[in-house]
Amino acid sequence: MEPFKKINFSSENYAGVHPKMMEALIAANTGNAASYGNDEITKGTVALFKQIFGENIEAYFTFNGTGANNFGLSCMLDRFNSIFCADLAHLYVDESTAPESFLGCRIYPVKSHNGKIVADELKVAVKRIGDVHHPQPKVVSLTQPTEYGTVYTVDELKAIKAVCIANNMLLHVDGARFYNAAAYLGVSLKQISAEVGVDVLTLGGTKIGMMMGEAVIFFSPANAASLKFNLKRSMQLASKNRFIAIQFQALLKDNLWQDMAEHTNKLAKLFEQEIAGIQPVKMAYPVETNAAFLNISPELHEKMQDFASFYYWNDERREARLIFSFDNTEEDVKRFVAKLRELAG
Amino acid sequence: MEPFKKINFSSENYAGVHPKMMEALIAANTGNAASYGNDEITKGTVALFKQIFGENIEAYFTFNGTGANNFGLSCMLDRFNSIFCADLAHLYVDESTAPESFLGCRIYPVKSHNGKIVADELKVAVKRIGDVHHPQPKVVSLTQPTEYGTVYTVDELKAIKAVCIANNMLLHVDGARFYNAAAYLGVSLKQISAEVGVDVLTLGGTKIGMMMGEAVIFFSPANAASLKFNLKRSMQLASKNRFIAIQFQALLKDNLWQDMAEHTNKLAKLFEQEIAGIQPVKMAYPVETNAAFLNISPELHEKMQDFASFYYWNDERREARLIFSFDNTEEDVKRFVAKLRELAG
Amino acid sequence: MEPFKKINFSSENYAGVHPKMMEALIAANTGNAASYGNDEITKGTVALFKQIFGENIEAYFTFNGTGANNFGLSCMLDRFNSIFCADLAHLYVDESTAPESFLGCRIYPVKSHNGKIVADELKVAVKRIGDVHHPQPKVVSLTQPTEYGTVYTVDELKAIKAVCIANNMLLHVDGARFYNAAAYLGVSLKQISAEVGVDVLTLGGTKIGMMMGEAVIFFSPANAASLKFNLKRSMQLASKNRFIAIQFQALLKDNLWQDMAEHTNKLAKLFEQEIAGIQPVKMAYPVETNAAFLNISPELHEKMQDFASFYYWNDERREARLIFSFDNTEEDVKRFVAKLRELAG
Amino acid sequence: MEPFKKINFSSENYAGVHPKMMEALIAANTGNAASYGNDEITKGTVALFKQIFGENIEAYFTFNGTGANNFGLSCMLDRFNSIFCADLAHLYVDESTAPESFLGCRIYPVKSHNGKIVADELKVAVKRIGDVHHPQPKVVSLTQPTEYGTVYTVDELKAIKAVCIANNMLLHVDGARFYNAAAYLGVSLKQISAEVGVDVLTLGGTKIGMMMGEAVIFFSPANAASLKFNLKRSMQLASKNRFIAIQFQALLKDNLWQDMAEHTNKLAKLFEQEIAGIQPVKMAYPVETNAAFLNISPELHEKMQDFASFYYWNDERREARLIFSFDNTEEDVKRFVAKLRELAG
Repeated sequence: MEPFKKINFSSENYAGVHPKMMEALIAANTGNAASYGNDEITKGTVALFKQIFGENIEAYFTFNGTGANNFGLSCMLDRFNSIFCADLAHLYVDESTAPESFLGCRIYPVKSHNGKIVADELKVAVKRIGDVHHPQPKVVSLTQPTEYGTVYTVDELKAIKAVCIANNMLLHVDGARFYNAAAYLGVSLKQISAEVGVDVLTLGGTKIGMMMGEAVIFFSPANAASLKFNLKRSMQLASKNRFIAIQFQALLKDNLWQDMAEHTNKLAKLFEQEIAGIQPVKMAYPVETNAAFLNISPELHEKMQDFASFYYWNDERREARLIFSFDNTEEDVKRFVAKLRELAG
Repeated sequence: MEPFKKINFSSENYAGVHPKMMEALIAANTGNAASYGNDEITKGTVALFKQIFGENIEAYFTFNGTGANNFGLSCMLDRFNSIFCADLAHLYVDESTAPESFLGCRIYPVKSHNGKIVADELKVAVKRIGDVHHPQPKVVSLTQPTEYGTVYTVDELKAIKAVCIANNMLLHVDGARFYNAAAYLGVSLKQISAEVGVDVLTLGGTKIGMMMGEAVIFFSPANAASLKFNLKRSMQLASKNRFIAIQFQALLKDNLWQDMAEHTNKLAKLFEQEIAGIQPVKMAYPVETNAAFLNISPELHEKMQDFASFYYWNDERREARLIFSFDNTEEDVKRFVAKLRELAG
Repeated sequence: MEPFKKINFSSENYAGVHPKMMEALIAANTGNAASYGNDEITKGTVALFKQIFGENIEAYFTFNGTGANNFGLSCMLDRFNSIFCADLAHLYVDESTAPESFLGCRIYPVKSHNGKIVADELKVAVKRIGDVHHPQPKVVSLTQPTEYGTVYTVDELKAIKAVCIANNMLLHVDGARFYNAAAYLGVSLKQISAEVGVDVLTLGGTKIGMMMGEAVIFFSPANAASLKFNLKRSMQLASKNRFIAIQFQALLKDNLWQDMAEHTNKLAKLFEQEIAGIQPVKMAYPVETNAAFLNISPELHEKMQDFASFYYWNDERREARLIFSFDNTEEDVKRFVAKLRELAG
Repeated sequence: MEPFKKINFSSENYAGVHPKMMEALIAANTGNAASYGNDEITKGTVALFKQIFGENIEAYFTFNGTGANNFGLSCMLDRFNSIFCADLAHLYVDESTAPESFLGCRIYPVKSHNGKIVADELKVAVKRIGDVHHPQPKVVSLTQPTEYGTVYTVDELKAIKAVCIANNMLLHVDGARFYNAAAYLGVSLKQISAEVGVDVLTLGGTKIGMMMGEAVIFFSPANAASLKFNLKRSMQLASKNRFIAIQFQALLKDNLWQDMAEHTNKLAKLFEQEIAGIQPVKMAYPVETNAAFLNISPELHEKMQDFASFYYWNDERREARLIFSFDNTEEDVKRFVAKLRELAG
C-alpha cells in the first residue's frame, strides 16, 4: 500500500489514526470483554462523559457520523415530525436518504448565513403547529461548528433554544468537530451543550483522529429506557464496542481534544494570514475553526492538485475548501501558500 | 481496565482483535488515504475478493453484521417483497427491527431443523406469487454455518437455489462465520458461494477476529451501479474504510482464515469428545463448526459462571451454547470439561 | 356494465352498498360541509361512538381495512416494537408490506387453532423483553371474528388481555366483521371491546355493507393529541369524510348492524345444516359467524363456479370458503346446496 | 345534520358529490361485482383512460390525492432517490410525512414563481448525480394547475421535461385539478400529459366533484407488472373499487369534465373582473383556473366569514384564497363581491 504523498487538506477523514488513539486501541486489546457495550471500558467512558457533561446524561456509541445523527434524532421524533436545519447541513445534503429511511420524518432547510441559521428566521420557518396536513415541527438540528467552519456563540445557541422552547421543540447538535468550536470559543464542552439546553449531541470521534466512532449524548432524556433499542435498530451497535469507547478515553484524557482542536484551528488561522495579498484568491468566509474556504478559479484549483489535495466545494460560488487535520503542520500551510502564490502568478 | 479473567465461551465478540489484524491496522496507519473506500487499500482488498470469488463480483464493506445483512438485502428487494429465512436466523431474531426500518419488507420464518431450512419445506412456504394482497417472495436468506453451528452441504445449497430459481427469487447468505463452514466442508469460499448460485454474501470479519468490519459480496448483480447508494443510506459507509479493508487482507493472506477456522472447529470437536460420558449433560446438536450446544440444567450452567462465561441459550429446550474463538485453546476446553465434570458430580 | 348473475359467496366485498347506507349517502349530499372530518356529520358519528363505546374514546375514520389496521397500530408502537398476531391474520398475510412500510415494526405470527390464538401459547411466544437485539413486544392483534369465522369468547379475550398486561403490551382488535362476533356472542359491541380491555379497535364498515369506510376506536389513549397526525400520514384522511361518517350512523341506528349480522350468521348456520350428509364434502371448522369452510375437492369447487362464486381458500388443506353477505338469502343457500348435492352426486 | 348555509369558497372538498356522479354511484349499485378492481366497471374505466391517454398506459385508482401522489411516486423511485417539486407543492407542505413513510425518499423544494417552477432554475437545483453521499435526483413533480391556480404551458412543460431527460429523471404531475388546466389552455388531457412526456399523472376526482377517488395514470411504465403491489402496499386498494371507477366514467362521458372546469374557471375570472376597483383589496396572482388569491387584511377576511367561508392562506403575504366549486354560481360571486365592497367600504 502506497501512502498518500501529497499534502492533505481534503478532509480529516483522509488522515489516519492519531498515535494516542492507536496506542489506546492496542492497550484495549488484552483478553476478553463483554460485547455490545457491556464491558468495563465502555462503562468507564460513559462515566467520563458524565463528569464532563453532567450526571443526568445517557451516552451511546456509533460507528460514524451519519449513524450518530440519525440514531440520536430517532430518539427525539415521532413519525409525523419534522426537523429544521441549515440548508447546507450534513444531515440535509450528505447523508443520502438515511434520515427518511431511518426516521421517516421531513427535513426542512433554513437558509444559512456563513453556515449558520439565525433564530429570527427560524422562528418564521417553524409553522403550522397542530395542522394535521403538515409535518409537525419537533427538532432543530444545528451543526457546531458549521460546514463552513463558523461557530454558533453561546448567545446564538440560547436564542435558538428559546425558539425551540416556544414551539415545544428539541435541540440537536451535530458536533462532528465539536471540539474545534469549544476551542474557538474558549469554553468547555458542557458550556455549549448542557448549559445552553442542547437535548442531544452528536459528539464526533472520527474527524478528530479516531479510527472510527462517534458518541451520542442525551441530556436528561424522557425516554432513557428505550434509547438502546433505537441504537440496535440503527445498525450502529458495535460488537466490540470497547474499541470505540477506549479512543474517547484517550481523547478526553488530559484534555487532548483541546490541544488537537487548538492545533488545527491555529493552522486555519495561519492559512488565512498567509494567503492575504495573493491575487486572485480570497477567503470566502471568516476562519473560526479548522476549515478555510477560498474563492479560487477551478483552473487554479486543478493546478494545485499535484501538490496538495483539497476539494472544489461549490462551482456556483467558486469556492474551494481546505480542512486541517491533526497531522497537518505549519510547514504544510506555508508550503501550500508558497505554491499557490507561484501558480497564481 | 480489567481484563476478563474467566474462560470466554460466550461469543467471538468477547475476544479482542487477532494479532495479525492488529498488525495490519498499525501498518495501514501511515499517511493519508482517500476516504469512503476510495483508497488504495480498499481497492486492493476488492481485487483480492475478485481473485477469490470471481471477477464479476462487486464488494462493499460495512461496520457490523446487522449492517451487512440489511445493506445487502436492500439491494435485492422491492418495497413489497418478502424474505424467507430460518425461524432462528439472526436476521429474524437478533437484528431488532432494522430489516423493517431499512428494507420495509416482510420476513417469513421457515421452520429449522438443526438450524437449517430444508428445500422441500421452503418450496411449500413460498406462495401466493402474483397475489397483490400478499408480500411478494423475493429472497431466501440462509445462515452458513447456522446459528446452531451446523453447515449446509453443497447439495443442500443447490437444492435451495433450485427453489429460488423456480420462484424467481434470489439467494442471500449470512456468512458471519462463513470460514468455519468452508473449513468444515473442506471447500473454498467460492465453492459455497459463487458456485452454488449465491447472489449476495455477507462475509464476516468481526467474529473471525477483526476489530470491526464485514464485507458484502454481490455476484453479478443486475444493479451494480446503485449498490453504493444503498451503502451510504444504510449508515455503513466508513470514512476511514482502509482500516476495515486492511483487516480482510490480513485474514485472506496465506489462508489465515482457514487456519483460524480449523482451529476453532477443532476446539468444538474436542469439546464434544471430552464431554461424552458426563452425566447429566449431553450435546443438543451435532458439532460441525465452532459452536457446541449442551443440554444442561440452568443450575449447573449458573454454577459454571465463575469459571467460564457461556450463554444459556434457550430456556424451553434447556440449551446452553459454547462458542470457540481464535484465542481459545485446547487447554481451555479441557479445563472447562474437568470443571463441569466436577460440578456435575 | 354487467351485473354479476351468479350467487356470490366469495366475499362481502362483492356485494354492493346496503340500501340504508345508500340512502344515507344521498341524504348527506346536501350543501357544503367542512372537509377532513371537521363537519357536523362526522362529529355526530363520533358522539354516537361515545354512546356505544364510552365517553373516553377517540374515533377516526379510514377508507379501508388495511388503512384502519395500520393507522391504529401506528399509534401504539415505537419503531423498535413487535406485534403478535395469528399466523393467518389479515394483517400478516393479506396487507402486503403495508405494516413494514407504515409501522417499521416486526410482526410475529402465533400458531392459530380454528383461527384463534390461545393465551397460554401467546405467553410463551412473547419473549426477550428488554433484550436490545430483539424487536420489543408491544401489541397483540386479534381478529374478531377470525379469518375462519370463529369467535373469541369474553373469557378468551380476558385471558389474552392478561398476557398483555403482564408484558406491558397493548391489545388491538381487527374487527372487520366485528358485528358478527357480537351477534354470535349475544353481547354489545362494548362488551367485547372496552369491557375486556381492548386498547384499539378496527371497526369495519365495508364488509357489513358500506360503499367504503372503517372506523378506528381508541380506548383512553395516552397519546390522544397525536392520533390525527398519524391518520393524515397514513393517507387515510378523507377530504369529504361526511360520506364515510354518515354510513356509520345508518349502520348503528336502530341496531341495523345487529339485524344484518344475525341475518348473515343465520345463513352460515343454515348452510351448515343443509350440507350435512352430502358426501364427499364436510365442514372444516365450526360455523360461528357468517363464514363457512368446506373440505371439498378442487374439481368439485371448479364445477360449482358457473353457478356460484366462492374461493378455494387453501390447496394444502383442501378448503373452500363461503362468506354470506347482507344481500344473500336463504334461497341462495338452499339452491347452492341443492346444486352441490347434484354435482357431488 | 345541518347543511352549510354560507357561500363556500373554501375548497372543492366542502362541496358534496356532483349529481351526475351520485347518479352513477346509484346505478353501479346493482348486484355483485368482483372486488379490488377486478370488476367490469373498473375495466371499462381503464379502457376509457386508454382512449383518452393512449393505449400504452396503465391506470390504477386510489381513495385520495395524498394516496395517489405517493402511490404513483413509489413506483418511480429507489429508496436512495430524491424528488424535486415547488416549495409550495401539496406533496411538500400538505401531505404530512406520508412521502417519507411510504417512499423513504428526500423531497427538495424548488423556489416557485406564481406557483410554478422554472426549467432554468430546476436545472441548477438538480445536482450531485452519482455522488454517493447525496440523495440521487430521480423525479420532478409538478402541480398542474399549481396551488396558486396558475398553469404550466405546453412549452414550459416541455422545457421541464428536457431537464428531466438530461438528468435521467422522470416527470410526475399532481393533477388534482388537472381538468381546469386543460380547460384554461384549451387542450386535451393528453396534450398536457402523454404528449409532453409526463411519466406518471395523478388525475384528480374528489375536487372535480366525486364522493372520493383519484386515478393514477402511468405512461409506458418500465415496471408495469409491479405497480399493483405498490398500490396494495399504499393502503389505497379499494375493496369495492367499482364505486370509484364509475364516477370517472360519469366525469369523462360527453366531456362533462370540460364543462365543469370551464364553469369554475369562469367563476374565478368573473371574480377577478368584479373585484377590480375595490379598495383595499387586490388580486395576488393572475387568475388562470378556478382559484383566486386576494391581498386582503386579516380583519376584513374575518368580517367576511359570517357570509362566506374562504381561507386566509398566508399570513406573511396577507393572502386569502377563494376556490370555486362545481356548485358555485355567478350569483355567489356577485353577492360575495357586493358584500366585500360593503365591508371594505
